[in-house]
Amino acid sequence: METALGRILIESLPQHVAQPVLLRGWVHRLRTLGKTTFLVLRDCSGLAQCVLQTAKLRGTQLKSEDTVEVHGMVRHDNRARTGIEVHVHSVQVLNPAAQHLPFTASSSLEAVGIDTLIEYRPLALRNPVVGNVFRIQAALIAAFREYLNGRNFTEIITSKLVASGTEGGTNLFEVKYFDPVAYLAQSPQCYKEQGVGGLERVYETGHVYRAEPHASSRHLTEYYSLDVEFGFIDRPEDLIQFERELLTHIFAKLNATLAEMLSAYRSEPLPSMMEVPCWEFSECLELLRTRFHRADLTDDLDPEAERQLCSIAQEKNGIAALFVLGFPLSARPFYTAPRGDAGAASSFDLLLEGVEITTGGQRLHRRNDLEQALIRRGISPEGFSSHLATFDLGMPPHGGFAIGLERLTAQILKLPNIRQAALYPRDRYHLTP
Amino acid sequence: METALGRILIESLPQHVAQPVLLRGWVHRLRTLGKTTFLVLRDCSGLAQCVLQTAKLRGTQLKSEDTVEVHGMVRHDNRARTGIEVHVHSVQVLNPAAQHLPFTASSSLEAVGIDTLIEYRPLALRNPVVGNVFRIQAALIAAFREYLNGRNFTEIITSKLVASGTEGGTNLFEVKYFDPVAYLAQSPQCYKEQGVGGLERVYETGHVYRAEPHASSRHLTEYYSLDVEFGFIDRPEDLIQFERELLTHIFAKLNATLAEMLSAYRSEPLPSMMEVPCWEFSECLELLRTRFHRADLTDDLDPEAERQLCSIAQEKNGIAALFVLGFPLSARPFYTAPRGDAGAASSFDLLLEGVEITTGGQRLHRRNDLEQALIRRGISPEGFSSHLATFDLGMPPHGGFAIGLERLTAQILKLPNIRQAALYPRDRYHLTP
Repeated sequence: METALGRILIESLPQHVAQPVLLRGWVHRLRTLGKTTFLVLRDCSGLAQCVLQTAKLRGTQLKSEDTVEVHGMVRHDNRARTGIEVHVHSVQVLNPAAQHLPFTASSSLEAVGIDTLIEYRPLALRNPVVGNVFRIQAALIAAFREYLNGRNFTEIITSKLVASGTEGGTNLFEVKYFDPVAYLAQSPQCYKEQGVGGLERVYETGHVYRAEPHASSRHLTEYYSLDVEFGFIDRPEDLIQFERELLTHIFAKLNATLAEMLSAYRSEPLPSMMEVPCWEFSECLELLRTRFHRADLTDDLDPEAERQLCSIAQEKNGIAALFVLGFPLSARPFYTAPRGDAGAASSFDLLLEGVEITTGGQRLHRRNDLEQALIRRGISPEGFSSHLATFDLGMPPHGGFAIGLERLTAQILKLPNIRQAALYPRDRYHLTP
Repeated sequence: METALGRILIESLPQHVAQPVLLRGWVHRLRTLGKTTFLVLRDCSGLAQCVLQTAKLRGTQLKSEDTVEVHGMVRHDNRARTGIEVHVHSVQVLNPAAQHLPFTASSSLEAVGIDTLIEYRPLALRNPVVGNVFRIQAALIAAFREYLNGRNFTEIITSKLVASGTEGGTNLFEVKYFDPVAYLAQSPQCYKEQGVGGLERVYETGHVYRAEPHASSRHLTEYYSLDVEFGFIDRPEDLIQFERELLTHIFAKLNATLAEMLSAYRSEPLPSMMEVPCWEFSECLELLRTRFHRADLTDDLDPEAERQLCSIAQEKNGIAALFVLGFPLSARPFYTAPRGDAGAASSFDLLLEGVEITTGGQRLHRRNDLEQALIRRGISPEGFSSHLATFDLGMPPHGGFAIGLERLTAQILKLPNIRQAALYPRDRYHLTP
């Protein structure tokens, strides 16, 4: 591409010392000291210090965030941070920015509200405080896929337009399809189980939809789910161990490749997850009773309990994370496998620094068990006949989990609001931009 | 994972010669010759020849597609195709398949209709004729992302719930959101342009939605779009050259890693795309007139014309593919940049083996030009005010393209119907499974 354009990227300047070059990018900073002007140019590969005679700017009214084309000569200069400067022959404005911008690519964003950052997304992305959230997020997804691609998993793409809900029918968005009514998928659950029935190990990265009527700092109506499902497991602990290894791989990769970016959000590298403990749900309730006098919890945890459990884990294990295994079966979806015969489920959550970022579990794999589970919940198996037929085809014992990408991103970067980890967040009150 | 499970994958058998192993998988084939039974076991990593005394199966009623657990000893055996056999101590059925299946993992699918293959997706995926379509598709997406990740592109995730259409408002699916009406995004166009405004080079892999009222062999209402957009281009030919290089990389990667799989669908390796020609739209109309007596085309191509142009390209260049550049501006979306001043657009299609698989182009990058373009089309700029504000922030000249994943998969594997390249295809008449 670069040969065709004639333009080179800033990152390749060291290979062009003493040569004329054409650069294109944004005016990141501009400082005039009498006859000399220093222009810091920014493109997708980095920043370059450009030096020019102030006289060359006469008539151009150059300013921050204008997009420009710069012709110049590359010189070694030890005073420049990168050891390299571009001595500019000419600057041409390709498209100017407006005179007044609410913030810039290099200004502090501390006093800028989240709504303004979303309204001015392109500008916000130029500021590393915002842009690096999404660079790290992209690297996180890439590491997730890389780990699974190397372990016989196949990426699948499944429909988000479905005829019925997987979780029993609440919080669904309805779509005016043609004759029938359609819904937006709440999860790829049925499809990823079908994927296991066909390919044994599958994953999907894609949107899921929850018509959450409230807007909290941890809920979105549309979020990106990293879904994993695999066959021939023995027990839910196999899934938990796999997730420990997966997250440890992802975090190690981010530490190795993006250490400097990460350091702006957190003082320590991302942790190994290998020692994250797994506690039974009943044990968690007991801990919450004795340590925090919580007597109000019976069939699920609430956000406060999640924070409290993470603080106990931090104290005991030095890492504010834990798996909670064995939630009450009655509070989990119909396809959940039981754990023992005292009403517990083979399902788990992963809590990380106070927030649930994963739900997973072993699933029922026999048709008869699934039918009974539906009936016990007062759901007619007829509505699931197409899915149930899958279990006549030779379905292995299986399970999986789903990681909420925005939540995981927010937790590891210590962002207080999940909206900071979504480019265009959707909730009860936001449908634009 | 494997240590925790005790089970090993079939692909690792060569490292376990003369050792006891535990395998799990599906019964791929079963053949009894008197006292000896040959069981071909299948897991996500391959096939294994297992040999056992027929007597050990007494009472189990083992059959194809049952999921089983096999304990045995690994032996060298030159009669086996892989040089390795497993001498079985015991077989345990984990979950049986039904007695009667419409086809099996090793049967010919020639007489099996597409609807049956979709209804029995898990079973169909076990058959390599179907399963390998999706393995190749997954490798294709991986190669797409890999190429862009290595060239300063950032993967972005943008909302599929939008307040208005990007293409002018037709063929939109309406969603019952909370108070306002929402639509399913027809493309990430506005968002990827915003991404360029922030990060210069972005891509997205995700679903898009078209409420196509007809069901043809080349249309889906939900398809997966590989979207690329980048800044600081000079002209649409820069995009075309970039797509040549991108597709050539993807195809070379598939040839190098999946040659045997590919050979089941096509007799030759995937081509280099570097020599794919770029013809002006007006030139194409002229060719169609002189070669095929087509006098009926004015502002667009039809499916027949796409096939006819590919046949001319095949004849002239030895490859049935071409870029068509310079469609009439009036027939392209408002954000399209003009090409010259005779009413042509800086937009192009890529036709591959008779089907359009890409639309792309250079976009307008000045707010005033966009407003004028909207007004000329009778659209009020007010409805796009949030997007138009983006162009006040310093927007470079830019452009991009989108590749329809299912169409590209179908074309390179010579599948006659796009539904064969979607796990769960959606059209006017299909919302399940």
